[in-house]
This record gives sequence, C-alpha cells and structure tokens, in this order.
Amino acid sequence: MLDKPRPKQTEDGTHARCAAVYQRCRSDSLALIAPLGEEDCQLQSMPDASPSKWHLAHTSWFFETFILQPQLPHYSPYNSDFALLFNSYYNAIGEQYSRPQRGLLSRPSLAEVLRYRDHIDRYMCDYLAQHGDPEGLVELGIQHEKQHQELLLMDIKHAFSLHPAFPAYRPPSPAAAQPQAPLSWSQCDGGLVEIGADDSGFSFDNERPRHKVWLAPYLLANRPVSNGEYAAFIADGGYQRPEFWLADGWALLQSEARRAPAYWHWRDDQWWEFSLCGLQPLQDTQTLCHINFYEASAYANWAGARLPTEAEWEHASRAIAVQGHFADRRRFHPEAASDAPLAQLFGDVWEWTNSSYLAYPGFSPFAGSAGEYNGKFMSGQFVLRGGACITPSEHLRASYRNFFYPHQYWQCAGLRLARSTD
Amino acid sequence: MLDKPRPKQTEDGTHARCAAVYQRCRSDSLALIAPLGEEDCQLQSMPDASPSKWHLAHTSWFFETFILQPQLPHYSPYNSDFALLFNSYYNAIGEQYSRPQRGLLSRPSLAEVLRYRDHIDRYMCDYLAQHGDPEGLVELGIQHEKQHQELLLMDIKHAFSLHPAFPAYRPPSPAAAQPQAPLSWSQCDGGLVEIGADDSGFSFDNERPRHKVWLAPYLLANRPVSNGEYAAFIADGGYQRPEFWLADGWALLQSEARRAPAYWHWRDDQWWEFSLCGLQPLQDTQTLCHINFYEASAYANWAGARLPTEAEWEHASRAIAVQGHFADRRRFHPEAASDAPLAQLFGDVWEWTNSSYLAYPGFSPFAGSAGEYNGKFMSGQFVLRGGACITPSEHLRASYRNFFYPHQYWQCAGLRLARSTD
Amino acid sequence: MLDKPRPKQTEDGTHARCAAVYQRCRSDSLALIAPLGEEDCQLQSMPDASPSKWHLAHTSWFFETFILQPQLPHYSPYNSDFALLFNSYYNAIGEQYSRPQRGLLSRPSLAEVLRYRDHIDRYMCDYLAQHGDPEGLVELGIQHEKQHQELLLMDIKHAFSLHPAFPAYRPPSPAAAQPQAPLSWSQCDGGLVEIGADDSGFSFDNERPRHKVWLAPYLLANRPVSNGEYAAFIADGGYQRPEFWLADGWALLQSEARRAPAYWHWRDDQWWEFSLCGLQPLQDTQTLCHINFYEASAYANWAGARLPTEAEWEHASRAIAVQGHFADRRRFHPEAASDAPLAQLFGDVWEWTNSSYLAYPGFSPFAGSAGEYNGKFMSGQFVLRGGACITPSEHLRASYRNFFYPHQYWQCAGLRLARSTD
Amino acid sequence: MLDKPRPKQTEDGTHARCAAVYQRCRSDSLALIAPLGEEDCQLQSMPDASPSKWHLAHTSWFFETFILQPQLPHYSPYNSDFALLFNSYYNAIGEQYSRPQRGLLSRPSLAEVLRYRDHIDRYMCDYLAQHGDPEGLVELGIQHEKQHQELLLMDIKHAFSLHPAFPAYRPPSPAAAQPQAPLSWSQCDGGLVEIGADDSGFSFDNERPRHKVWLAPYLLANRPVSNGEYAAFIADGGYQRPEFWLADGWALLQSEARRAPAYWHWRDDQWWEFSLCGLQPLQDTQTLCHINFYEASAYANWAGARLPTEAEWEHASRAIAVQGHFADRRRFHPEAASDAPLAQLFGDVWEWTNSSYLAYPGFSPFAGSAGEYNGKFMSGQFVLRGGACITPSEHLRASYRNFFYPHQYWQCAGLRLARSTD
Repeated sequence: MLDKPRPKQTEDGTHARCAAVYQRCRSDSLALIAPLGEEDCQLQSMPDASPSKWHLAHTSWFFETFILQPQLPHYSPYNSDFALLFNSYYNAIGEQYSRPQRGLLSRPSLAEVLRYRDHIDRYMCDYLAQHGDPEGLVELGIQHEKQHQELLLMDIKHAFSLHPAFPAYRPPSPAAAQPQAPLSWSQCDGGLVEIGADDSGFSFDNERPRHKVWLAPYLLANRPVSNGEYAAFIADGGYQRPEFWLADGWALLQSEARRAPAYWHWRDDQWWEFSLCGLQPLQDTQTLCHINFYEASAYANWAGARLPTEAEWEHASRAIAVQGHFADRRRFHPEAASDAPLAQLFGDVWEWTNSSYLAYPGFSPFAGSAGEYNGKFMSGQFVLRGGACITPSEHLRASYRNFFYPHQYWQCAGLRLARSTD
Repeated sequence: MLDKPRPKQTEDGTHARCAAVYQRCRSDSLALIAPLGEEDCQLQSMPDASPSKWHLAHTSWFFETFILQPQLPHYSPYNSDFALLFNSYYNAIGEQYSRPQRGLLSRPSLAEVLRYRDHIDRYMCDYLAQHGDPEGLVELGIQHEKQHQELLLMDIKHAFSLHPAFPAYRPPSPAAAQPQAPLSWSQCDGGLVEIGADDSGFSFDNERPRHKVWLAPYLLANRPVSNGEYAAFIADGGYQRPEFWLADGWALLQSEARRAPAYWHWRDDQWWEFSLCGLQPLQDTQTLCHINFYEASAYANWAGARLPTEAEWEHASRAIAVQGHFADRRRFHPEAASDAPLAQLFGDVWEWTNSSYLAYPGFSPFAGSAGEYNGKFMSGQFVLRGGACITPSEHLRASYRNFFYPHQYWQCAGLRLARSTD
Repeated sequence: MLDKPRPKQTEDGTHARCAAVYQRCRSDSLALIAPLGEEDCQLQSMPDASPSKWHLAHTSWFFETFILQPQLPHYSPYNSDFALLFNSYYNAIGEQYSRPQRGLLSRPSLAEVLRYRDHIDRYMCDYLAQHGDPEGLVELGIQHEKQHQELLLMDIKHAFSLHPAFPAYRPPSPAAAQPQAPLSWSQCDGGLVEIGADDSGFSFDNERPRHKVWLAPYLLANRPVSNGEYAAFIADGGYQRPEFWLADGWALLQSEARRAPAYWHWRDDQWWEFSLCGLQPLQDTQTLCHINFYEASAYANWAGARLPTEAEWEHASRAIAVQGHFADRRRFHPEAASDAPLAQLFGDVWEWTNSSYLAYPGFSPFAGSAGEYNGKFMSGQFVLRGGACITPSEHLRASYRNFFYPHQYWQCAGLRLARSTD
Repeated sequence: MLDKPRPKQTEDGTHARCAAVYQRCRSDSLALIAPLGEEDCQLQSMPDASPSKWHLAHTSWFFETFILQPQLPHYSPYNSDFALLFNSYYNAIGEQYSRPQRGLLSRPSLAEVLRYRDHIDRYMCDYLAQHGDPEGLVELGIQHEKQHQELLLMDIKHAFSLHPAFPAYRPPSPAAAQPQAPLSWSQCDGGLVEIGADDSGFSFDNERPRHKVWLAPYLLANRPVSNGEYAAFIADGGYQRPEFWLADGWALLQSEARRAPAYWHWRDDQWWEFSLCGLQPLQDTQTLCHINFYEASAYANWAGARLPTEAEWEHASRAIAVQGHFADRRRFHPEAASDAPLAQLFGDVWEWTNSSYLAYPGFSPFAGSAGEYNGKFMSGQFVLRGGACITPSEHLRASYRNFFYPHQYWQCAGLRLARSTD
C-alpha cells in the first residue's frame, strides 16, 4: 500500500469535505467534454495523446484499482476487461493495452464509460462517507485526475489542430488587444537556499525532500516572452541560424517542415494561431505558448539570455502567491502579462527551465504500485514550472515539477528569460 | 465527361428502375452500419482502411461531384469543405486530405454525414426521375458504392481485430460443422481463348477490351483450399521453411511476429479465428480466408501446385453461373465448399491469381476525371477473382478484376490450386 | 544436383575450350577493379548494392560450392568462414551474412580475396581439364559471374555517385556530340507467336519453356528515348503532373526530393549527368539511362504511348542479331542511336517493359540448390530486355529476362516506346 | 579567434616542448592504426561512429582550419575539397558532408590521408618552432586529437563487433584470472563544496567556471561494478523486470533483442565478451564495461543503490591522484579492481553519473568557431567521469566531463554505486 504521499489528514478534513472535493473534481472532468461529440472523444492524434474518453475511464480505473479494490473486501471490478484497457503504465498492476492504439478502442462507448464513472462515484462516495481519506490515496487520485483534465485539453487541442477545418472547442472571446508590460529584470541574490516540498500539504514524491541548493546571483525576467517577441526572432532568421540551437534541436528542425511554433500558420501575409477557439489572428502581446524546449533555448540564445534553472525559478517564487490564470477561468489560452512583479509566474503558461527532470537528493518514490508514478520517467526530460491556463486550479504549488521531452510542444509551454550576473 | 463505361442504356432501363436500383444500393450501405456505434464508425485502424463514416460520405461525394455538380447548373455543394475531406484519390478533382489521417476527422459527425447522404439522395432521385442515366455515370457510382460496401466490412473487421475484446459485428450462427468436398482436379484444354468484358453490360475499364489469349492445357482444383488444409501446412513447418516462399514474402515474414494467417490465434491448444462474429474456434472444413499473396503462393508450392493465372481462371469460369455466397446472405464468412464443379468459383472468397494487375492489350481508361479509377494502380498488385461472402451481389462478373498488393490480407482472400499438364 | 540448365555439352565444347572460356570470364572480372583502390572495393552504398570485393569473392564461392565441393571428393573449403560471408541468398545452402552489412566485412581484405580467387581458379582449371562441363554447371557459374560483372559496375557507379567529388571510374572520352536518328515506328503484326528459350544453348530457367503467346498488332519505336526527349518531359512539368504517373510512382516522388533522373544534376543552368566518367554535361542525343519504371511509364504516358510488353519486345527482336554496344567496348555509357532498324535493341540500355516478372507457363526451376536462382524473385518486379553498355558480351540472348523493382534505377535502364494499333 | 581555453602559456612551455608534445600526440594516432588494413580504416558501422581514416584526416583538418589558415597569411589548403569532407559539425565553418555516410568516402585513400597528415605536420612544426602556442589553440587541437584517438578505438571495436568472425585488434594477453576487492563504501560528508576547473591548466569550456555546490552526505562504492556482479543481475531476471528500469530504458529493451550488455554473447553455456582481443570468455572479476545508462541505472536499482551525481563523484576524487589504467598501457580493456581506496576512479572505465550534461552556472563557451565545441550538445545526454583504459593519458582531469546519450554503449562505460545517507 501507498504510505508516503499524504501521511496525515488535511487539517480541516472531515469526511464530508473529502467527498465534496472528490465530487467537484469528478464533475469538472465531465464539464470538459460538454462541447465534444462521441467521435471527438474517440480521437487519438498521436501516440503521446489519448482520447478524451480514455482519460475519463482511466481516472476512474485509478480510483477503482488503488482504493476500491484494496479497501473494499467484496468489491469486484465493474468490468474485468477494463484493467487491460485503462491501465496506463503501471507495470506492477499488470499488462497494458498498446498506448498508441487507444484510439482504436471504440468499445466501451462514451455512454458506457459515463456509466462506469457513475458506478465508481457511487462506491467512492460511500467509501469517503465512511472512511474519509486516511492514507491520502484519494487526494492522490484527485490530483491524478486533475493532471488528466489538463491532458484532455492538450490532447483534444492537438487532435483538432490536425483537422483541416480547425474546429473550435469554445467560441472565441471578443478580441480586445491587450497591452503587455515592457520587459525588465528582477535581481535574485541566491546563496544557500532550500527548494522542494515540505510536509505541510499534498505533494508528489518527485518534489521531495526539501533540500539545500547553492545559487549564484541571477536575474529573472518580469514576465514570459510574448508572441510578438517570438515573431521578431522568426523574422530575424531564427529558424535558419544554427548558432542559436542545441544540436538535437537543429537536427529535429532539419527533419521537419515547420519554421514557427507548431500551432502558428502563415496565411494572407500574417500569423494565425490555432487555439481552443479555432484559428485566430495571432495577438502580439499575448504570452507565447506551445513551443518545445529547443525553441525556448534558441530564443533565449538569440535574446542574449538563458533559461532559468528550476531551483532559480522556485527560489524566485517564494514570495509570490500561487494565484493566476488557471483553468477555472475557462479561457484556456494565455493572455498578455501585466506589470505585476514576476507576472504570470503561476498560470498562463508552463515555463521551460534548463533543468533535467531528475531525482532530488534523498528522493524516495511512493511506496506500493503508485511508486511508478514519477520516478521511472527521470531521464531525457526537462522540468517546467508554474502551471498554465489549462491547469486546474488548486493543483499547483511552488514546488510542482512538470516534465516533458524537449521535442514536445503540445503542452501549454512558454518561457521566461534569465541571466547570470557577475 | 465520362463517355466510356456505359455507352448505352441498360436494356430494360426506365428512369424509375434506375432510381430504384440507386435507392436499394444506398439503403444497403446504411444497413451495414446498423450494428455500429458512432465511435465504431470513426475507427481507422491502418492507412489502407477508412472509417465507416468516411465510406458513407465519400460515396455520396462521388455522386455529388461526378453527377450533380456537372449536370445540374444551379447545384452548389452541400458543404464546400467536403471536397477536401471526401475526395479519395482523384488528383484531377483537387487536393485530398491525408489518407492515413481519416480517422482524425471527428467532424462532420456521423449524424451530419447521414444528413449529407439524405441531401444527395433527394437530389439524385429528382435527377434520375428526370434524366435516367444516359451516360452510365450513375451505374458507375452505384458500382463504386458497392465496392465501398465491401471495403466498409473489411475495414471494420480489421479495426475490431485489433481490439483486445474482439467485438462481434454480428452474432455467430449456430456452428454445425459442415462437410467439405474432397479435393479433385478439373481439366481445362486451353488453346486460343478470349477473356475480358464485352460491351453487353456494365464493366470497369480495366476489364476491357475483350481479347485473345493463348492458354496451354491446365488443371484447376474443384474448390478453394480449406482451413484444415492450411493448418496442415502450418503444422508441417510451412512458416519456417524458406523453400516454399517468394523472397519478398520470406523477408516480410522475418520482419513480423505472425506464423499463421493474420486473423488466426492459437489459444488453449487450438486455432481460433477472428471473424465478424468475434473470435470463434476455427472450422477445418470452411474455406480459408484472409491470407496474403505470399501465403497463397507458399501454400501452393508446398502442395506441389501453383496459383492459376487470371486468364486460366476466367476461361474456366465461362460455363459457370455468377451465383454463390455473396453479401446478400448476410453471413459475411466463407463456408465449406460443396461437391459442385468448381465450387465457390463465385462468392465465399476472392481467389488470388498469379497474374499481376496490368493493362489488357488495347486498354484505354475511362474518359474524364473518372479515368483515374483503375489505370494508375497498375503496378505492384496481383489480381484476385470471383468475389467473396462480403461482396455485394449484382456486382460480380466473370471478367471482374480485383487487385491488392501481395502483402495485404484484410480483403477476404483465399486460393484455388492449379497445375500445368504436360 | 542441378540437372536442368544445360543438359548437353556445348557443341564444339572440348575441355580446353571450356577452361579458356572460364579463364577469360575470370580475368574480365579482375580487369574491372583495375581502376579501384582497396577502399573503393570495400564500398556498399545501399542494401541493394555490394562491395566490389564481395562480388569477386561471391562468384568464386559459387564455383567452390556448386562444383568443387560436390565434385571433388577430397576438396575442403579454402576458408570455412566464407560460406557464411559469401553466400548471397541460397537458403538451401545455409545461413547468410546480413546483406545490408556487406560493407562492414573489412576482412578478408582485397588481397586475401584475390588469393581466394587464385586458389579457386587453380582447382577449377584442373577440374575443367579433366572433366569439362558435363552438366552445364560451369557455364551456369560463368553466366552468374557475368551478371556480377555488371552488378559490380552498377554498384561502384552508385557508390561514386554519392561522393561529393563525383570520382571518375574511367577518363571521359572526347565528347563529340553524336547525332541521333529521328523517332519513327516499326509495325509488328503479332498473331500467335512463340517466345522463350529453346534448348539450343545456355539459358536460365526463367526464360523457359518456349511457349505460344497471342499478340495483337503493335508499333515499336525505332530507337530508345534520348536524354533530350526526356529533358523536354521534365521541362513540360512532367514531375509535377500526377496524371502521367502510376499511383505508386507518384507517392514515391512525393517522398523524395528528386525531380529528374537520379544521376542528373542541375548546375549552372544546365543538366549534368553523373556517369562512370564522373560528372559530365548531359548529351541530348545520347540514349537516356538510369530511370526507374515509374519514370519510364510516366514518360510514355506523356508521349501518348506506352511501354511494350516483353512478348512484344522479344517477338520484334526475332530478326535482329544479338549485337551492339556491350561492355567489351569499355565505354560503359550509352551512346546516340543510329538510324538502323530497331537500333540499340541489344546493348546500350536495358529497356523497361510493362511485363511483370512472372513464371512462364510450364516453368520449372533449376533442380537442386541452384533452383533458388530465379523463381523466388517472381513478385513485385518488372522485366527489362536487351542488355546494356555494361552488360558483358556473350551474355545476352533475345529471350534474356532481366528484372528489377519499379523504384530501382541503379541498373542502366532506359525505355523504348510502343503503341497499340486498332 | 579563440581567447578562452588557454589564456596563458604552460609554465615550462618553450616552443620546442610545444612541438614535442604535438609530435607525440600525432604519432600516437598513427600507432593506433598499425594493426589495421586499408579496408578496416574505411569502416563506419553506425552513424555515431566514423572510419579510422576519417579520424586521422579530421584531426589534421582541425589544425589546418583553426591554426594554419588563420595564422599563416600565405597558407592555402592542402585540398579544397577536404573542408567539406572533414568538417565534423562546425556550422560556423561551413557545410559538412553527411555524417552517416562517412563510410562512403573511399577517396581520399588512406595513403592520401597519411600524406595530408605529413603535410600538416610539416607546417605545424614550423609554426610551433616560431610561435609556440600563445593562445592555447594548439593545446586545444592536441586535446581534440586525443579525444579522437579514443573514438577511433571505440569505433573500430564497434565495427569489428559486427563481423561474424569477431576480428581481434590486438592479441589477447595470457588470461590469469585476477582477484577483485570486495565491495565496501566510502563515507563522504558533503556540505558546500566546489567543483569545476580552475584556471591552472588546460580545460574545456564545459568544465568551467569552478563553482559552489551543496552536497548532502553520501556513500560511494570503493570500486566499480564487476562482470560477475552484473551477471548476477542478469541471472536474477534483471532484463525481464520493469521495476528496475527507467521507462525509456524499458521501452528500448522491448524494441531490441538483447538481454545482456551489447558485447556479451552466450555460447556453449557461458558468457563470452567481445573486446579488442576478439571474443574471449568473460572474466567475472574484471570491471564491467560497455553498458548504457539505462543498464547502469537498472543495475543500481536492483542493487538497492543509485548512481552518484557528477558533483558527488568530483568531490570524492579531490584527494585522489589522476593516475590509473589508461591507453598508454596498450591493454585497452578494463581489469579487476584492487583494494585501493576508490579504486579505478581514474582509468579502466568511464563511470555513468546521474547528472544530465548541462551548463555550469556562469558557463560561457569558447570564443570564435570553437565555441561550437561543447555547448550545443547540452540536452539529452548524461555525464560520465574518470576516463577509461582507452583514454589517452595526460588527457584526464578530475573536472573532465564526458557525455553520451543514455542509449549509447559503444564508449567504454561502467558504473560505481552510490547511496544517500540519512
């Protein structure tokens, strides 16, 4: 059994509150598919992505597998085939259906998956009313489902981006051009600092333990890079000049046709951006998103700066409240940065750091099967920080570590510049 | 405009009959998706296959593009986006959406595609009532739709074959083991014979012109090879012995895991076969299906025989009525062969021949855009003859040439042995 | 043992003459590597090609394996490792070294391979002096080696074509522009004709048996297509117009960068052609070579003609002597066609036909291990006829069938137009 | 021009000594190809590797390009084609020949490359006699050539490993089984330490600047893992148990056939190891080599330990002399570890660390074209430390950072276990 992630009860946690949090999270997931049809929910546009329907089922399977089955002596699975279909990657739990072929699972239908969710929810609410969440596993399941809510939005956006008619997930907002704050730099002194999660609330194993890091002094930009700034990089030949690019990124560029962020399209002499509102004229002042690590790194080189490390980012965030433009605003697209200090540090876009996703000193994974949650992905990926406009609220922390491969762009990722001082 | 495929009216062709034939064909297509849900109709399991929904839309687009638009002066397309989405491969008609990504077209929904069909049908019925089919283009469209009816069944079978639960498209029939006729040989004298379509009815351009061929005497098996016979080939090490295989087939085998026909599974010490009835115990006496050309060729070598040429096949069929087990029986799976002469020559399974799919002497393609129908596929493929249990009835002719690449197995293909005499 | 290919002695065959033919063939092979260094002889530029050194060793292994070992009771192999290294594809003989990795066999060195050849030659000459060639196996080995002489030239040309300095295998001839005959058509009546090899001399199994074919009347061009004619096709947008291309050929084009024959380069506003003389300005009147089947077919469509079938080609050749520009002239590049009837039918370039490479009616492969020689390649390839300027003389026959996949261009292949008459 | 790598003269550096160091390095390179033939020197067995001949030419091109051309006003290149052929990856210097096709460069021949080396050496010795190495560029060129000496050995070993006869580069030593020290742990206190190169001698840009790092206390194994220990991991099902593997490593395993280190072969009921002495029985007590990062990580997990970080490794090495089993002993294979403290920390095998190859805080690349030397590779790779038995002596430093992708194994890499204490 899982003994690590939440050793003690939330401070004000009654069983009823626990059930309410669970139900809100579950209904948030359902709200996400309201604009989608059965066929939309079936789409898998690349091996990294999953159908919306699969996300709905997999998150239910998680509660069934890690809570209902081990905790309720007489519980038998809703459908014994689902273990194969909806296990994502837990080798310890058993065999998994081929990930790149999730889009072939027309059965169970969306309607059947929704019945499965109902079934799980009834059992879970009973369970929570009686037991609460003594081991923190329900909270883990809720945080897990919030991650899949963001994935669901990323995945449907990617699928729609490949449709020649660029379907809109939601109607566009009236587009008043927003002003953005001018670029400036925030001085950080560094020294021997601490980063990572302490034991005061929920956190994933990869954020722990809290530990000391020595930081040299550094500068951090007051806001992320905007579309207009990135367009200037492109106009300056950025995608044709190898001196700005990591060798892997340059090689990838040569194998691809694109010479701009993946969701940008050049039509009628201007840039358009595909977003969850369909194809819209690019707004220069809005914060840039959907770039991969190589693009972030190349832009920073071009700009005479660099990406921050995750320790620099986290240390700089220590005095900033975890508030911002998250998914609860239901705009699902980054906006222009204000002139607040370290604007958009939380929300709007995930910020690429120059830190590889590796274990913290003294890292130990969750006990039990959930131990496969994070640790096994610790090679080849880079850390992103701060959450985005599609990240569920009440999910982020200053110590939260997201991670993607450097070629991946379908997460809502941008960048904030940093510089060393000397 | 198309001037070749049907230069004259069907003999008893009144306009009303013409419309009735059209409507029957169209409703046959709809009947095929009755067992399927929206998500099933969205599936594309490989680049060669298409979603059921796409077949329904594409066949409608064919009538809209080749008849309604050129013939009705004021007709405007139902949806101008559909030209891109539902053009299969007619370069002369314009750009096409990427074939391997048809499964990503969640929009239009199935419901919308059915509305599109209704719309086309209303216009077509009006058109037919007034004009009939003076140029044979409607008949071409109907034959085209019948081809897609067979493709729809092939494609949904392939998609379901990859689902771990092996869904059934239709319930299995009560499985009384059927006896099969013993193998015997039919002597054919050959000489200077004629093959190909004459001008007495509809035919595709690739069946024409009727022309002379010299045939040496040959023997043709009285029936196709059965599952039990093929299982004996496997048991004799057939998939491990290169001497039976064409070099390309052997190379393909080495790159694949399978050591049996693609839809066969070895479980619990016996062979099971995936069919449109789900996974069922293999019936030894039933006619073998879903083998590729290499498997057909290897089996023939193992059996000390060879595949017939298409001219041998067609010449042998000249006295056989075009009757048999076609899709109208709605079993959709081959049965055991009776002891009739040249049993199952028509229906049950397509029979691989050893003839490459090439132009007949004097071949000229359909005029106009429909000229891309057949001719451009004349390289790399082999001819199959005789139709199968999923082929619509009233579609086959003795001169009908089907064609697939030698590695393809998802069509309902078997083989009949032949031998040279000397 | 092989009992089929040459059941009887060459008519004037004394043992001495037999040995002389053997020795001439063997020394011809050695002469081919005179312009090459050790490193050149090591090159393998693609999986289809082999290092020159490998050709020299493999042809020796053929004599050792099919003659010395079975015929000389006390013969033991020169090096027991060579069986693995130099078996090309005879599964019946044993395991083979991975074909695409032949370029990794730095050992044995060229010097050692030459010693191996000497060793084989000494034994073979002894054998021939005593036994002659009672079963025709030596002649098979000689014809086999001649095939590899042509392959050696094809392969080194391909390898040099990828070197940025375009090395020359031989110095260019002084380039007097040659006139070419104007295009005209030769009428052929067809009827019931015979093609294939009879028993009067050496032939491969795939050329037999001689058999009847019915031919409709047809026209055949007096000469192959020239570079200038093909350049006109390119200038007319030939590589951008799908209507001329087979679907497989068009798909291949879209996946490649090239828009001209593989050995053509556009530099300084003109076409250059890579040949065994290095990179030279393209000569318009010279006969076109190094096109693949798709290019041949597209050109023929553009020209309002078609490719001949192999039966048409062979029937037309019945009154033409097997003479022409072969490798003995040591120019190794096609020239301009004269105004002789059916000029260059033999020699200069192999001519693509529209016939798939399939078994003749009544085909039976060589007996014994050599039976793998031809039959197992009978899928997916097209027949070429007539030999080329790199084909050894005394190797061609009117019935000779060469075969390549439609995408292959590294053989010296051109095309001659044909037309149906009606 | 390059202004960073060596701002000042070596302390005892006279011009004569400078030339002697240059000449020794150059003759060391030549000595490496003594056992090789022309064909061996031509081999390129994978895109990551290069022919021996190419290494000899490229290192000469480096001196010609970065010293002779900029420093000698009247110098003209030996052969103007060589800039294209022998530029490895310096985009700022110009176009490069396709790396995976270096094995196709039969021209220039090895003999010509040796003449090129002579030519460069004559000019360099003149230059050094007059100017010495005021900017440290010659030292950079020498260190660069030493890196290629190690690559040459790695590459020829890889090429020979694919030859079915497993050629030996050098004769095997008489194989007295060596004892190994038992595993024990060395306690390191950590704290605020410094790592990285200072300015007291040559170092690469990626080792600088020297900077502070906070280390928690840790344990480091007294010696690297041995073959016998790794064999126990295999015997315990290590390659079949996903719980030990990083997800990327497990995915790679599933796509490959191998279930042991790449150079291990199971024959006649025992392990054999391919080395530069050919295929030899595995010695259990010798230090393990040629594992990739995933294998190192999986072994460490299985052993209940972890890999050290590069900072832990470097801090532990501070009191250890940079001495050990390097290439000057000409054994080219790791041996058994003695019971010295932190045995084999330098030499024998490179040790995988759990640190990604990233910029140190305040990193700035070499100025000028040489700035492409290291920085652009800073994504996706892991750091290895300590040098190996094929690393040239006088090349290593405690701060030396080697780096490879986690799937790469053809470098001589092993691992040393570490543990956190708490």
